[in-house]
Amino acid sequence: MSDSNTTLADLRDLVRRFVEERDWRQFHSPKNLSMSLAIEAAELMEHFQWIDIAESRSLRSQPQKLAAVRDELADVLCYALALANELEVDLATAVRDKMVKNAAKYPADLSRGRFDPPQAQP
Amino acid sequence: MSDSNTTLADLRDLVRRFVEERDWRQFHSPKNLSMSLAIEAAELMEHFQWIDIAESRSLRSQPQKLAAVRDELADVLCYALALANELEVDLATAVRDKMVKNAAKYPADLSRGRFDPPQAQP
Amino acid sequence: MSDSNTTLADLRDLVRRFVEERDWRQFHSPKNLSMSLAIEAAELMEHFQWIDIAESRSLRSQPQKLAAVRDELADVLCYALALANELEVDLATAVRDKMVKNAAKYPADLSRGRFDPPQAQP
Amino acid sequence: MSDSNTTLADLRDLVRRFVEERDWRQFHSPKNLSMSLAIEAAELMEHFQWIDIAESRSLRSQPQKLAAVRDELADVLCYALALANELEVDLATAVRDKMVKNAAKYPADLSRGRFDPPQAQP
Repeated sequence: MSDSNTTLADLRDLVRRFVEERDWRQFHSPKNLSMSLAIEAAELMEHFQWIDIAESRSLRSQPQKLAAVRDELADVLCYALALANELEVDLATAVRDKMVKNAAKYPADLSRGRFDPPQAQP
Repeated sequence: MSDSNTTLADLRDLVRRFVEERDWRQFHSPKNLSMSLAIEAAELMEHFQWIDIAESRSLRSQPQKLAAVRDELADVLCYALALANELEVDLATAVRDKMVKNAAKYPADLSRGRFDPPQAQP
Repeated sequence: MSDSNTTLADLRDLVRRFVEERDWRQFHSPKNLSMSLAIEAAELMEHFQWIDIAESRSLRSQPQKLAAVRDELADVLCYALALANELEVDLATAVRDKMVKNAAKYPADLSRGRFDPPQAQP
Repeated sequence: MSDSNTTLADLRDLVRRFVEERDWRQFHSPKNLSMSLAIEAAELMEHFQWIDIAESRSLRSQPQKLAAVRDELADVLCYALALANELEVDLATAVRDKMVKNAAKYPADLSRGRFDPPQAQP
């Protein structure tokens, strides 16, 4: 079972069951979940707070640190899935639609190696 | 194409291609991506900043507001996928492993309707 | 010694000395400090994650919970002061200038009881 | 009027009047303000998202970019002051108390040039 054979729906079901078994939907308002998502994103960021960019790239080959970051990334994902469950949003479609918008905002040929949208470039 | 038949790997590939076509891996250090994730989570939160919990639940049936939130949720997910790509983390396994830990921390029978871990309860 | 007789410069000096005594300016790049600020803001938010709006108002009269929130608020402030130190920004002027902009964006008579800018109102 | 002759109470009054003139205390629950603080911290962070640590240090001498960051830092401070107003917390005391705790956690002689608490050090 890996990213290659796990669907978004599989993970959504996993989160949904966990929440329902604990009667936690009462806490899972979209407002609260948006806070949870930001809180977990900050916990993930904490691991990168004081290190420089090169060190952050090397974290991939430090098993202990990577395991901690992986756990925080899982937390972020769990809350994103929980929010999608509450709002009844299809994530695969949402991501594909957003990538189409992103591709229009950042045309590949004009955006190579530049992070600003081309219209903002001199 | 929906959450039922889209794998995590499908979306990761979509993000990977987008990043590579723009030569953006130079910007996608884990440190930077952790900031991006937190920034997008905050943009999502902005939609819930001044409304109360009940109103946030009703957002699901307000198409215009829901579309805006859906876009922000997609942004969060895109950066989570980009970070997984950089760190070479399998998200499906990471989420499953974390849910096992969560289930140990919050046993279903002791956690029904309570958001504090049982050991923290009087 | 209270807010009535403590200047912004007093607190900035306190933070500056603390940082210099530990030779921490090497870590205190504006990029890192902006992450620290967001991380501490998230830790503060954690105390309000699962409670509703009315409960959050009543926290003022719960000494133990208030003490925890007060500590997190102090952390946020410390990093804001540290960032002002690094960027050599005068905070009193920055706040006053921003309040003038805010007053133009939200004229008092058009903004009573509404959180959207008037130009965004129907 | 600068940080040298502006007290915390001066800025708190400025924010309090602004909020009261617009009848905005109804929106200023601690829960909502904790979200606002995190949102503004993320907007500040946005300016540092894609640049490296050295570039972030040089921002101090780029007037246009510095002005934008200064505005975001003012926003963070305004919400910190608004939250202190709602919770009736004295910020000067809160910061001093927290700095005493920090000094105990990070003794100057053991923490020179190290960002981890000494007890966590090998």
